[in-house]
Amino acid sequence: MVPHSSPGSTTERNIDLNSILEEMTSGISHADPAMMKRARIRQARLTKPPGSLGRLEEISVRLAGIYGTTRPKVASRSLVIAAGDHDVVRQGVTSYPQDVTAQMVLNFLAGGAAVTAMARLFDVDVTVVDAGVKSELPEHPDLISLRIGPGAADISAGPAMSREQAERCLIEGVRIGQRSAGSGSGLVAAGDMGIGNTTPSSAITAALTGMPPEVTTGRGTGRNADELRHKTEIVARALEVNKPDAHDPVDVLSKVGGFEIGVLAGVMLGAASRGSVVVIDGFISGVAALIATGLRPELGDYLIAGHRSAETGHAIVLDHLGLEPVLDLDMRLGEGTGAVLAMPVIEAAAACLSEMATFDEAGVSDSETKRSTTA
Amino acid sequence: MVPHSSPGSTTERNIDLNSILEEMTSGISHADPAMMKRARIRQARLTKPPGSLGRLEEISVRLAGIYGTTRPKVASRSLVIAAGDHDVVRQGVTSYPQDVTAQMVLNFLAGGAAVTAMARLFDVDVTVVDAGVKSELPEHPDLISLRIGPGAADISAGPAMSREQAERCLIEGVRIGQRSAGSGSGLVAAGDMGIGNTTPSSAITAALTGMPPEVTTGRGTGRNADELRHKTEIVARALEVNKPDAHDPVDVLSKVGGFEIGVLAGVMLGAASRGSVVVIDGFISGVAALIATGLRPELGDYLIAGHRSAETGHAIVLDHLGLEPVLDLDMRLGEGTGAVLAMPVIEAAAACLSEMATFDEAGVSDSETKRSTTA
Repeated sequence: MVPHSSPGSTTERNIDLNSILEEMTSGISHADPAMMKRARIRQARLTKPPGSLGRLEEISVRLAGIYGTTRPKVASRSLVIAAGDHDVVRQGVTSYPQDVTAQMVLNFLAGGAAVTAMARLFDVDVTVVDAGVKSELPEHPDLISLRIGPGAADISAGPAMSREQAERCLIEGVRIGQRSAGSGSGLVAAGDMGIGNTTPSSAITAALTGMPPEVTTGRGTGRNADELRHKTEIVARALEVNKPDAHDPVDVLSKVGGFEIGVLAGVMLGAASRGSVVVIDGFISGVAALIATGLRPELGDYLIAGHRSAETGHAIVLDHLGLEPVLDLDMRLGEGTGAVLAMPVIEAAAACLSEMATFDEAGVSDSETKRSTTA
Repeated sequence: MVPHSSPGSTTERNIDLNSILEEMTSGISHADPAMMKRARIRQARLTKPPGSLGRLEEISVRLAGIYGTTRPKVASRSLVIAAGDHDVVRQGVTSYPQDVTAQMVLNFLAGGAAVTAMARLFDVDVTVVDAGVKSELPEHPDLISLRIGPGAADISAGPAMSREQAERCLIEGVRIGQRSAGSGSGLVAAGDMGIGNTTPSSAITAALTGMPPEVTTGRGTGRNADELRHKTEIVARALEVNKPDAHDPVDVLSKVGGFEIGVLAGVMLGAASRGSVVVIDGFISGVAALIATGLRPELGDYLIAGHRSAETGHAIVLDHLGLEPVLDLDMRLGEGTGAVLAMPVIEAAAACLSEMATFDEAGVSDSETKRSTTA
């Protein structure tokens, strides 16, 4: 009773992608509730007033649930930066020339960018992916060249890419994410580079959350209210022209997305499938998480939001994902900077849960001791 | 025409302390405005949209001004934890027994506390100081035993300590801070341990900022509204009984302070005098900064607030110091945890300013390039 769909039809391809993704991401199950409960009990016995480590306590408990131990230890730190271009820049939505995407990829490889300075400091492995940069890039040992397309097409005039391309982004992304996760219990940050990519991100956010473009669109690197108004119109037009299906994240990605966004969504699924925590960065990285959790809701348990970006749409994305960011430093650079910067805090949360002495071990009296002796 | 004051009078001792402190802290001048200007110019040329590193940019500029270079690099990271007891706990202002102060000192020395777990992770040198713990502590190579007094006296009944003791706290603290700063260009965090020390801290905040005890007093480790009301009354009584002179920080310290608070104030002055940045922690550490900046206002340039503590009075202290904290994670533990946790962020800010390529160096077009070519 299997329907004979014609080869290459949407239905058949959906089944293919679903089964491939299903197989590749079968390791993603919810964070272990029993282990999280045990971690909470341990937290309550550590030598500090209950709750006094604030947000670090909830982060450590989540790591316990993902890593499967009440003594979580971060085994590796890595960052995947996916780069892609966007022909919607023709519509004048950004103040930087398109060449900057390729130039910044070279800057990452040379170690001259903000995120590479941070990665050196914190000993984070960096993988740069050409997901779909317009101009060709020279070969480099640290560059994965996917080049799924020569930049996403102008979304204000039609779809960003074909459905096949969107699927390839996800599948290749999963492979890269799995490699970055190593043998698990790591932190994998997802960063982006793509001149013009706040425009498709605003469109994806509108499509997947139901919020209007006026709310999901921010200034990006633009400078004034006129530019913002124009950009909002372009986002609205992209949605009208393409009519992305909110119930089909791959459709949304292919119609109003971008190659780097699809690859990052895959990276997140791949990293989580190997038992690593995914640290999302700002708006673009968050939008990739919207797509990835649309495909596998269990991924939500593996996500930690590195920071609150100053870019408007980011708050909507975090709200939709139910995430409270670790840092709030008014940053809006992308590249993974906000995710990498949060890694030491996440690692410190794990170290406190794993290495602190309990009241009993340290021979420290807790407040209950007093209550019982003075009662 | 020098007045003959009797030996040991307040006036003579003031002159002595002032001249000693003056000599010890003569290295504290304002952060170099010319270097900060040069750092701002360099920031504007780095390969990123202007302002996109948010708060990291201002932090890096401050480091440039303190370290005297547009390429700041953190040379060392250290933490001083000063511990002291407070006989005001007799008034029932806290839910932990007084013994916990000494027990936690042993826990620091054994590496079982939250802050020591973090310090190991971030390679931070830890110095523990017995400023005035009630019970005697065993000798330990990592413990500096000052023991200026066996716990501060009950401030609801009289002064916490003599003026001489307050002066000794400051002078010994300066020496410890200088040692921790090493040859300069470091980060020195100031942490506290002292059961009951939010009570004197609330009193000091009220005395030095003019805010009423109802506003400066928070729950500390206490649990309910009744306990808070009682604690507020004790703070008000301490101010009424002692009448600390708001224009004389040493008077405030001696009357409603504590040994560890005085030592930390000295540590800050000492660290800054050797050209290191001082990272303050939560409420107690912030109160020590209020006293220290009261003595040497230039110290203000050297202070970075590690985090916003959940303890009520902390916001008032930060406001008075004109500081915006780096982290806001709902922590309220003390020990220096919020300061140590902010160190990687501060170091990352320095690394970005020092190591990022400029647009010219990287061959990256900036937004001005586009403007001029498309104009």
